Amino acid sequence: MAVEHFVREKLRQFLAEDIGPGDLTTDSIPALALQPLRATINARRPGVLAGVDFALEVFRLLDPTVQVNGPTLTDGSPLSTGQTIARISGQAAALLKGERTALNILQRLSGIATLTRRYADALQGSRTLLLDTRKTTPGFRYFEKHAVRAGGGANHRLGLFDGAMIKDNHIAAAGGIGPVVDQLRRRIPVTVRIEVEVDTLDQVEEALAAGADIIMLDNMTPAQMREALRRIDGRSRVEASGGIALDDLPELAGLGLDYISTSAIITQARWLDIGMDITE
Amino acid sequence: MAVEHFVREKLRQFLAEDIGPGDLTTDSIPALALQPLRATINARRPGVLAGVDFALEVFRLLDPTVQVNGPTLTDGSPLSTGQTIARISGQAAALLKGERTALNILQRLSGIATLTRRYADALQGSRTLLLDTRKTTPGFRYFEKHAVRAGGGANHRLGLFDGAMIKDNHIAAAGGIGPVVDQLRRRIPVTVRIEVEVDTLDQVEEALAAGADIIMLDNMTPAQMREALRRIDGRSRVEASGGIALDDLPELAGLGLDYISTSAIITQARWLDIGMDITE
Amino acid sequence: MAVEHFVREKLRQFLAEDIGPGDLTTDSIPALALQPLRATINARRPGVLAGVDFALEVFRLLDPTVQVNGPTLTDGSPLSTGQTIARISGQAAALLKGERTALNILQRLSGIATLTRRYADALQGSRTLLLDTRKTTPGFRYFEKHAVRAGGGANHRLGLFDGAMIKDNHIAAAGGIGPVVDQLRRRIPVTVRIEVEVDTLDQVEEALAAGADIIMLDNMTPAQMREALRRIDGRSRVEASGGIALDDLPELAGLGLDYISTSAIITQARWLDIGMDITE
Amino acid sequence: MAVEHFVREKLRQFLAEDIGPGDLTTDSIPALALQPLRATINARRPGVLAGVDFALEVFRLLDPTVQVNGPTLTDGSPLSTGQTIARISGQAAALLKGERTALNILQRLSGIATLTRRYADALQGSRTLLLDTRKTTPGFRYFEKHAVRAGGGANHRLGLFDGAMIKDNHIAAAGGIGPVVDQLRRRIPVTVRIEVEVDTLDQVEEALAAGADIIMLDNMTPAQMREALRRIDGRSRVEASGGIALDDLPELAGLGLDYISTSAIITQARWLDIGMDITE
Amino acid sequence: MAVEHFVREKLRQFLAEDIGPGDLTTDSIPALALQPLRATINARRPGVLAGVDFALEVFRLLDPTVQVNGPTLTDGSPLSTGQTIARISGQAAALLKGERTALNILQRLSGIATLTRRYADALQGSRTLLLDTRKTTPGFRYFEKHAVRAGGGANHRLGLFDGAMIKDNHIAAAGGIGPVVDQLRRRIPVTVRIEVEVDTLDQVEEALAAGADIIMLDNMTPAQMREALRRIDGRSRVEASGGIALDDLPELAGLGLDYISTSAIITQARWLDIGMDITE
Amino acid sequence: MAVEHFVREKLRQFLAEDIGPGDLTTDSIPALALQPLRATINARRPGVLAGVDFALEVFRLLDPTVQVNGPTLTDGSPLSTGQTIARISGQAAALLKGERTALNILQRLSGIATLTRRYADALQGSRTLLLDTRKTTPGFRYFEKHAVRAGGGANHRLGLFDGAMIKDNHIAAAGGIGPVVDQLRRRIPVTVRIEVEVDTLDQVEEALAAGADIIMLDNMTPAQMREALRRIDGRSRVEASGGIALDDLPELAGLGLDYISTSAIITQARWLDIGMDITE
Repeated sequence: MAVEHFVREKLRQFLAEDIGPGDLTTDSIPALALQPLRATINARRPGVLAGVDFALEVFRLLDPTVQVNGPTLTDGSPLSTGQTIARISGQAAALLKGERTALNILQRLSGIATLTRRYADALQGSRTLLLDTRKTTPGFRYFEKHAVRAGGGANHRLGLFDGAMIKDNHIAAAGGIGPVVDQLRRRIPVTVRIEVEVDTLDQVEEALAAGADIIMLDNMTPAQMREALRRIDGRSRVEASGGIALDDLPELAGLGLDYISTSAIITQARWLDIGMDITE
Repeated sequence: MAVEHFVREKLRQFLAEDIGPGDLTTDSIPALALQPLRATINARRPGVLAGVDFALEVFRLLDPTVQVNGPTLTDGSPLSTGQTIARISGQAAALLKGERTALNILQRLSGIATLTRRYADALQGSRTLLLDTRKTTPGFRYFEKHAVRAGGGANHRLGLFDGAMIKDNHIAAAGGIGPVVDQLRRRIPVTVRIEVEVDTLDQVEEALAAGADIIMLDNMTPAQMREALRRIDGRSRVEASGGIALDDLPELAGLGLDYISTSAIITQARWLDIGMDITE
Repeated sequence: MAVEHFVREKLRQFLAEDIGPGDLTTDSIPALALQPLRATINARRPGVLAGVDFALEVFRLLDPTVQVNGPTLTDGSPLSTGQTIARISGQAAALLKGERTALNILQRLSGIATLTRRYADALQGSRTLLLDTRKTTPGFRYFEKHAVRAGGGANHRLGLFDGAMIKDNHIAAAGGIGPVVDQLRRRIPVTVRIEVEVDTLDQVEEALAAGADIIMLDNMTPAQMREALRRIDGRSRVEASGGIALDDLPELAGLGLDYISTSAIITQARWLDIGMDITE
Repeated sequence: MAVEHFVREKLRQFLAEDIGPGDLTTDSIPALALQPLRATINARRPGVLAGVDFALEVFRLLDPTVQVNGPTLTDGSPLSTGQTIARISGQAAALLKGERTALNILQRLSGIATLTRRYADALQGSRTLLLDTRKTTPGFRYFEKHAVRAGGGANHRLGLFDGAMIKDNHIAAAGGIGPVVDQLRRRIPVTVRIEVEVDTLDQVEEALAAGADIIMLDNMTPAQMREALRRIDGRSRVEASGGIALDDLPELAGLGLDYISTSAIITQARWLDIGMDITE
Repeated sequence: MAVEHFVREKLRQFLAEDIGPGDLTTDSIPALALQPLRATINARRPGVLAGVDFALEVFRLLDPTVQVNGPTLTDGSPLSTGQTIARISGQAAALLKGERTALNILQRLSGIATLTRRYADALQGSRTLLLDTRKTTPGFRYFEKHAVRAGGGANHRLGLFDGAMIKDNHIAAAGGIGPVVDQLRRRIPVTVRIEVEVDTLDQVEEALAAGADIIMLDNMTPAQMREALRRIDGRSRVEASGGIALDDLPELAGLGLDYISTSAIITQARWLDIGMDITE
Repeated sequence: MAVEHFVREKLRQFLAEDIGPGDLTTDSIPALALQPLRATINARRPGVLAGVDFALEVFRLLDPTVQVNGPTLTDGSPLSTGQTIARISGQAAALLKGERTALNILQRLSGIATLTRRYADALQGSRTLLLDTRKTTPGFRYFEKHAVRAGGGANHRLGLFDGAMIKDNHIAAAGGIGPVVDQLRRRIPVTVRIEVEVDTLDQVEEALAAGADIIMLDNMTPAQMREALRRIDGRSRVEASGGIALDDLPELAGLGLDYISTSAIITQARWLDIGMDITE
């Protein structure tokens, strides 16, 4: 995978956070700059892989001659304990300096992909996409949203700039859902959808009348959702959100929702244990 | 608390990640730029607070006239469900745009502080400090290490630049612990300690002979640690690390270690539920 | 208007481009740093105003004490020759240093707004929005798209990141419109619309079947557009694009298109003459 | 041509403006990252070429393996409709992502070079150089001034830092032309010329007495210019400026001015139509 | 003095170099963030002052409420041992954190100004300006050139971008002085002077014929300089350079040179001893 | 030596300071971009070399194809007049543009290494390391500290972030040395040493009691130092600082201090004369 300039700059910042003006230990041992080293990256627990291209790029940024030896697992692959994800070789100093940053990316992202897969599997067979939210670690959102896709989910908006989401305060300030939507139409790019967050069935009707592209049913019961879907009848995409647990998904899967969004796949994910082993 | 320039720039980047060139929704409703708003930030689950100064600074960056009304809880405070952390007022647009970034910081950091407190409490009464590691979310390390302190832990090195840590590969490349330490002495700032990671009691002796400031006992049993401590006898600080679980702490607390380090307080922490409520 | 951080940083870069390490002339005359100055910004030709908030912010960046005296025209206002747009006062050095950058913004943007207004007026009374394209001056797109809105147009996507636009090469690589749309659905944020560029009526059917949110009719005759609109029948938004001149708009206005996009409002716009006059 | 680091960074920013965190469409079709593509860049209207090295560098930044096949026209070349400017081949994804940015540069710059050529031709045979001004699109000045040279013009100062230009307000604040020039002499680099803008023949004498390197005759009639040149008699370079139209140039060409400057070659230029065609 | 944005950003970088993510000592003592402190900045050796505005701005960047109490000496002022340069008061933490950076600037710059003054005094009464060169500490040139002016010298070009200097290799590549000058005339801004470095009287003639603005006599004896000046006879500015020592200046002062340039005023300068004393 | 990303970015900034948007002279002579050139870098005075890897990297940044021909002296090597340090070949334009920046680094750093060597030699045979301080040229500290090591010295802390140094004001604010050390222990990384600056023998006792890692004897006489060392008796590292001259070193060398620090090796160093000669 070609790594986008945007991503490469972020990876450089992650390395700079760890290395700063220099790795005191490794830089003080000149032999390490000359010595070749081989290593494997291995899963230490079962899960789902995410972030492997980023991890490899981290090593390449430190040593452009780093080699990837043999096949590498791709994001989304299931991992079993002990399974080798990638084999690399390169300058010893580069491998030692990049190890922590590369693994931090892999472990955090694979942790998210692993949890996301459990949620996504619970929706298997339905037409409903599992979505993330904007609850992400500051500065690391692009990567965490990538992990969600690797785990079988899809992404809600990346930020406040690529999706319009109308909430209570917007409605109150503009005097109703209709007026907000009207104001948005001429002010935001026409390539972006307008979503309205609703709490009641009355608001569903208002959002429909205003021509919302997506209606988000906030904290509704399955029964309320069913009624909302009946009224909307395909005239808008429908998202359910708000305190939805993994156990709720089987019931919700049958409702015909377009999207179910949850922050849990990111905020409740624990790191997956992945390590690097020097092989020679 | 005066917020350091370094921190302010990071917060700006976090805001830029979310807002980009603009908040499509809020920026399209001119009334929100003129309207004052009051809000409270509230715990929705019990835990330990961390990051409140960062969260408030996020709002100030968007609107320098944001006011903090009444007392604010300080980092490290215990939180009960429903407890108010801070009361703020300011331009409605600024509060709406900053909400997600401010809460993401607070929730992630308070999640870490909450888990750290449990580990730290298990060492209560001992002379042993609980330490974090370099397993942190890329780009967010400074903040996560702050949360560890808020939870009652202390910090291992911030990066590869403010601490020397000698591991297997360094030792092999330089030909022993002694040679590494000798090379480091003239090459790294004299204000930085030299730590040696050891697996065996023989290595403990080697590290002592080399004059290590800190000896890290990697993956040792309590019995091995006890023997290591006996041999070191105060001639070096001693850190235990490697797969130490919360349940192990009561036994380890009595050994007389200087430090116990664990990545779990960061990598296994879940976000604490904290929300913002508009009060008028 | 509160100026977004993103905008402020761009304005700083514009100033840095002109001032670099210093204004050799003004900085060599210490009296100018102490002397207050009053100035008006005036239209020298009729047109439509755009960029006034950016221009005023330029002066504030150089001297936070700059005052705006009396009412200022807002973006979108019609301008007659000699009309005063804003009255400012501040440190003489700041006004002299910022003048060229502020006027360059105002003149370029008002030139675009003036031309856009002519196109938008030709669609008056219809349901069709006039859109810009991605043909904008590199580095200045955000501002040029702002000028389009000031002139009565609306914006197509800001970049490749906030709208999906499927063209020939995408279709060929993926093996048809349907497969592309399928690939996009799970990979792009659900808040972003999917647009398909079509040349023929057959492609219109394909795009409809694939569920395109917007169908762009590329270089079609009015008759072809009419037939396409008949077939689409409200199941997708419809955009006409490709070599559409100002004279074509009256005829197209009656077709019922959702959008007409043209690069001409930006690429063919000439700067509007606006100047700054020192009043004391 | 080797592209300067300064230029490369600007080009990267232009790409980032368009691509941001990713090209939603192209990045979602993995086949495009693997597929080779050949394309030609072609003039669609007659004019003068400018910016070709920048355009090619844009593609190289996205894919270092991009090849330029066969000869490429150089900046300043006349273009006829349909003429091929360059032939490139490379990764399909890179060509599709870079196309708009590369063409925006080429079209804007060639538009300026085309208009400049008309002005420069009108001075053909005289000793007078055609100059631009600081009226340029914010953030894009370096490139627009490059286009002026490609069209046969020359450049006035790049910014406030590489030329001193004394105007009314400077003179008033310092108490006369002489005092300003005296202050400048010791404060600005001796490698930079001092220019004085004058409105009257009296000021011409003052500027001469002060030792101005360049005297700019602002908004003078040809008769006034002739008299000014007579008095100056080679003791200073002479520039005419202010509202000079293309039609005025033949008369002015015979006066013996060193420079005629006009903002029109940039502010009145329209984009030249240039496109990219996929050839396989 | 209003400090330019360019300067403020450099000062921020200087602070970041010293403080990084935080001042471990001062930040660990919360009382210092609340405590007010008064201090004076004092000369500990005689010399010439330079950099005082930069030093004060350093403190303001850390604490915008820092006050300057009473009169402050201006750059270029003679300093006697013990003399107070400025009195400041502000948050204790800010004063302690900024002290080293502020003093480093003051000491280095005053050292340069002090040495420059000795050279400049040796030219007192002549028409010859003392100039610096591009031999400056990387990253600190703007400041060192400021110090030269404070000491009574003037500046040669700031970099390769605001002055053209033709040397041997340029002449050889272009085939003579005339051809180089011809190429430069249309390619560089007309606001910039063209200087030619010559070793022989023949080259002086060539440079004159080519119309050089400044002729630099490189490593010539006073007798050669005299002959060169005779031939040039005011048709070009004349600079002497190359191994000129302080002792040579009295003799050279009488020759009628426009400029004498020497790197010694920067490369041979030692820091002037200046300290900060806490007064309460 | 592999050059760290941190270093490469600094070198780029140094080049940008000199070159800005372009080298007016060299860039105007197209032949220089095509022409190969060979050059040697030579000492023109005796001294100690420092910075050669940085200098070579400067050229590589401008032209990645620059070749180093034959052996290159390494940092710390003694230099005799006329000795060749390195032989390089590459694009003529790159060598001419990079020359000044590369030499400025080499000359400044070798000047520091040369002076440092004199101080370090005076401690030869003792157990005492010669240390630098934080008195360094703003923005250039990393490089100046490198030069100190090349000259045989070692480094005190790089900044306020990688060493804790307790001074008068900290002690006063916290209420004694003990309380400061207690506060620091839980707030700073455990990998960083705590140093206390003391003026009296009483303070030595206090610092010892508080458990200081390093005690800095500020401005003490040799007799006082001897007494302090006697009392400390190996329980803390000991540094002498404050007005220590080269002549004082022989006497101090015998005391058994761990460190002697002096700013003189940086602030009193003059540039070493090193030049570049074109060889064809």
